[in-house]
Amino acid sequence: MISVAIVGTGNVGYHLWHKLAKSDDLHVTQFNSREPNSLQDFDIAIIAVSDDAISEVSQHIKSKLVVHTSGTASIGVLQNTTLKGVFYPLQSFSKEKKIDFTKVPLCIEAEGDRDLEVLKSIAQFLGSTSYRISSEQRKYLHLAAVFANNFTNHMYQMAHDICEEHKVPFDILLPLIEETSQKIQSLSPLEAQTGPAKRKDRETIKNHLNLLNDSQRELYKIITESIQKHGEKL
Amino acid sequence: MISVAIVGTGNVGYHLWHKLAKSDDLHVTQFNSREPNSLQDFDIAIIAVSDDAISEVSQHIKSKLVVHTSGTASIGVLQNTTLKGVFYPLQSFSKEKKIDFTKVPLCIEAEGDRDLEVLKSIAQFLGSTSYRISSEQRKYLHLAAVFANNFTNHMYQMAHDICEEHKVPFDILLPLIEETSQKIQSLSPLEAQTGPAKRKDRETIKNHLNLLNDSQRELYKIITESIQKHGEKL
Repeated sequence: MISVAIVGTGNVGYHLWHKLAKSDDLHVTQFNSREPNSLQDFDIAIIAVSDDAISEVSQHIKSKLVVHTSGTASIGVLQNTTLKGVFYPLQSFSKEKKIDFTKVPLCIEAEGDRDLEVLKSIAQFLGSTSYRISSEQRKYLHLAAVFANNFTNHMYQMAHDICEEHKVPFDILLPLIEETSQKIQSLSPLEAQTGPAKRKDRETIKNHLNLLNDSQRELYKIITESIQKHGEKL
Repeated sequence: MISVAIVGTGNVGYHLWHKLAKSDDLHVTQFNSREPNSLQDFDIAIIAVSDDAISEVSQHIKSKLVVHTSGTASIGVLQNTTLKGVFYPLQSFSKEKKIDFTKVPLCIEAEGDRDLEVLKSIAQFLGSTSYRISSEQRKYLHLAAVFANNFTNHMYQMAHDICEEHKVPFDILLPLIEETSQKIQSLSPLEAQTGPAKRKDRETIKNHLNLLNDSQRELYKIITESIQKHGEKL
């Protein structure tokens, strides 16, 4: 039986606790990050707090293995004197929505092979696939995730604004949005790219630029140029 | 029995023909756009050719109703002397992939109510939901689709490049990409927006900018600014 302390009551802490608490092979307890706990009786403490707070919170923890769940903080941010690691679930969490952990890749990092195995087994309890990713690689992975998630959502926002301004139901675009994300599950982004920028269809691009307001136009222009430059590099 | 001529053998023409030909209530024939046909014996001719070719191709057609399938061309581009309309399937087509027409919204436009009903019934044969959209609205809808599809795919491309440059498997991001597109099926883009730009997390943004090459940095900057400006407008 592995004893697990989950420190933090935000989205990640909540979902990890909610799922892991169901396992018969783990003994899981959740803690508020502001409780000054040493947690020395736990095999592993999973710190799920904001990046800024990891150092401070980890200082007081004396579990055998202490890991954080951040996509950006390096393993060296941890200030505990015991063993260190990272257990980063690469997915977008919200408290309201149930999480399917089979669709949450876990990026794990540890100082030794034994601890890697422990983290791997916890990922297995969650039903997640784990990937061994270094702090250096994780920085870039998190950055890539900003493009794939936050920036993609902003493209939806732009589409939504245009529809709203011109009284077209945004819902008409939902099947296209779904198809675009499905395509990428089997094609590379390069194979999946279509549209006026890719085709260098100057006439359509010119017409589109005329339909947009200043800030929309700037974004349209620079992304179109980026698609075309990307094509030239190949 | 409605007789339908499909003019054009590209992706859209192929998929429409492939699906409609199965209906017992339609008599469907496919034509090459270069065949100089009058097609006067057909109730409806669906022109599925490139935007540039619609005028030229439509000139020679004498079906009762002639429609094109373009997202950008107005209804007035059609040069037939009979009735005109638009039958625009808003989806991304590729010849290799089977199309599920229940996920293809059809934007229809016609000069009279009777023709609208005909177009609506053809959409029903396909299993599609139809929306009555004017040429003016369609221009904006197509523009919104460029953001939601082509530009979104370019965000995937950026993420893919970053992963490749730093030897991280892009596949780790696939569940996140799927979740991002799923979220938007029930939340507005505004509610779904997360990330350092939305949080105004200057430290993370600064770190990210330092990790990118010049062209990636420019795109990151301008999209981050756009997300932040969008927040201020509200």
